[in-house]
Amino acid sequence: MSLTGGLRLLILALVATGVANAQFAPFQPLPHMPPVPEDNLQSPGKIELGKKLFFDPRLSGSGSTTCQTCHNLATGATHRKGVVPGDLGGTSTRDVPTLWNVGFNTVYFWDGRAISLEAAIAAHLLAKEAMAAPSNEALVSRFDAIDAYRAEFRRVFGTESISVDLISKSIAAFLRTLVTQDSTFDQYLRGDEAAISVQAKRGFEWFTDSGCASCHFWVNLAGPVPGLAFQMGEGFYELFPNYPDTPADSKYKFSDDLGRYHVSGIDADKRLFRVPTLRNIALTAPYFHNGAVSDLKEAVRVMAETQLQKTFTDAQLEDVVAFLNTLTGEFPVIAVPYVH
Amino acid sequence: MSLTGGLRLLILALVATGVANAQFAPFQPLPHMPPVPEDNLQSPGKIELGKKLFFDPRLSGSGSTTCQTCHNLATGATHRKGVVPGDLGGTSTRDVPTLWNVGFNTVYFWDGRAISLEAAIAAHLLAKEAMAAPSNEALVSRFDAIDAYRAEFRRVFGTESISVDLISKSIAAFLRTLVTQDSTFDQYLRGDEAAISVQAKRGFEWFTDSGCASCHFWVNLAGPVPGLAFQMGEGFYELFPNYPDTPADSKYKFSDDLGRYHVSGIDADKRLFRVPTLRNIALTAPYFHNGAVSDLKEAVRVMAETQLQKTFTDAQLEDVVAFLNTLTGEFPVIAVPYVH
Repeated sequence: MSLTGGLRLLILALVATGVANAQFAPFQPLPHMPPVPEDNLQSPGKIELGKKLFFDPRLSGSGSTTCQTCHNLATGATHRKGVVPGDLGGTSTRDVPTLWNVGFNTVYFWDGRAISLEAAIAAHLLAKEAMAAPSNEALVSRFDAIDAYRAEFRRVFGTESISVDLISKSIAAFLRTLVTQDSTFDQYLRGDEAAISVQAKRGFEWFTDSGCASCHFWVNLAGPVPGLAFQMGEGFYELFPNYPDTPADSKYKFSDDLGRYHVSGIDADKRLFRVPTLRNIALTAPYFHNGAVSDLKEAVRVMAETQLQKTFTDAQLEDVVAFLNTLTGEFPVIAVPYVH
Repeated sequence: MSLTGGLRLLILALVATGVANAQFAPFQPLPHMPPVPEDNLQSPGKIELGKKLFFDPRLSGSGSTTCQTCHNLATGATHRKGVVPGDLGGTSTRDVPTLWNVGFNTVYFWDGRAISLEAAIAAHLLAKEAMAAPSNEALVSRFDAIDAYRAEFRRVFGTESISVDLISKSIAAFLRTLVTQDSTFDQYLRGDEAAISVQAKRGFEWFTDSGCASCHFWVNLAGPVPGLAFQMGEGFYELFPNYPDTPADSKYKFSDDLGRYHVSGIDADKRLFRVPTLRNIALTAPYFHNGAVSDLKEAVRVMAETQLQKTFTDAQLEDVVAFLNTLTGEFPVIAVPYVH
């Protein structure tokens, strides 16, 4: 997929799926909730159960790590260290991605190895670089032993038969509520011209004109969302770096990770990564799949070099950063749950 | 201080401070808030600022650990692993104590080395086994660089001059809201005879008759609280183990830690530890200063052996555990803050 192929592909897909071109705007305000799969509809009880599990260290191998440990909801729903060891010390080479607006993804993990949010959660529970639980059976028997959880699963799902499937569904239901609406950029998109600064508008214009928007477009500034153009499980990937062997690539060693190739084994997938959201980007440092860059302006400079083979002027970099700062949304109120 | 000295000392202190004996009840419902020092009164803005700091990883050396990381407010406000390394890997030999009702302490840390909550927080920020910040100056300059924090400190304290003193005061104000009222034991103390089971009542009776209540009495089941009998900074300590060289001591190596002696260097302080609260004890495993025991019934058995030189029957152990389970309170609603 070429760099500028994203937008072209999208438009083709829109035509193919019968969406009138007239209705298509490449940037749109974030909806109040992401698409929800038919076999995991939302309910207040399910969301609350998922929130409890999100804060419950018993989901981890050692019994001490929670989802919140690495996806801190008080900040970027991510980990400021970027690449961090798993619960039992399992090593990782990948940056912890944000969970804000994660329900708008079509695939999960940097390499798209999980094709639904539920599958991504189930995989996290066992992954050595994440929660490192010993096995699904061990997890289930831990939670089976807690009367209050059994009662809550029965209330939510009509069964006391706790399973990793139901655990993952509950957590997914909670994560789908992590939507940050009403950024100043969204206000601007809705017609409030004064919502963002002149500099941010200039940055947005350069962002689209220079090519950034070829991948970072639509409601989540991460390409297609499920149900429109792309279906859940159909990943929107891009080469990163698109131009390897640049000074930035040498410095930050991006090409050391072959991305989706690790999943598919297909040569054409080498260096393909899921396009990440830019929403709340000011809060989600460090950046890139390996968390190698902490400064947002440097991250923009690197993207111009590695993806567009361009050198942005300092003023252009500052303008784009001003635009990116308009993508910080309003955070929903989340009461810390009381875990059984 | 002998084991049964606690209650005797308290009564003497009550007389000395002019509290009429008639007013003294060794067990009382938890007040809705703990005493507050005159130089750090509560305000909604200060509490909110403290909550943000509690969830902010920038308080730690690596920029990745938060207070919440080890004091998980979704569970026992403690860490289920007990003894855990500090932010930069600094080792510890001490269990993470609960923060629920921490404002009722008269001294802080297991050895009482901090004589106020504010001092305890300031010490935690620099301690290698906790937040491991490089220095007060480095911390302050980090927060000075964040416009939104400067504005919030100005709103709360009337000054933009951020300091570790003001950071500690804010967090202390938040921690003083972590009060878990209205346990079934509190309901029982208020006259609701049906609030706790017959077994729990039997356990409570044995708890007082056997000697546990010599130390674990009053509103927080941890001895004197600030302002009544004891003043802030005046610790209520006990020998642990009171009877060393028991099988339990050999097994769990309690005596390896000389407690308050590490702070004072005084021989008489060897093995003295601050008496911890029993409120929410069912949620705060593992137990003891070294976190060596995970099971509550075993913890009670050990206490009988090491502190009272008694062997409780299995029925007595079960009864006391039933009583301890009545000490779990209601948890206040805490909305996850949005960190600047």
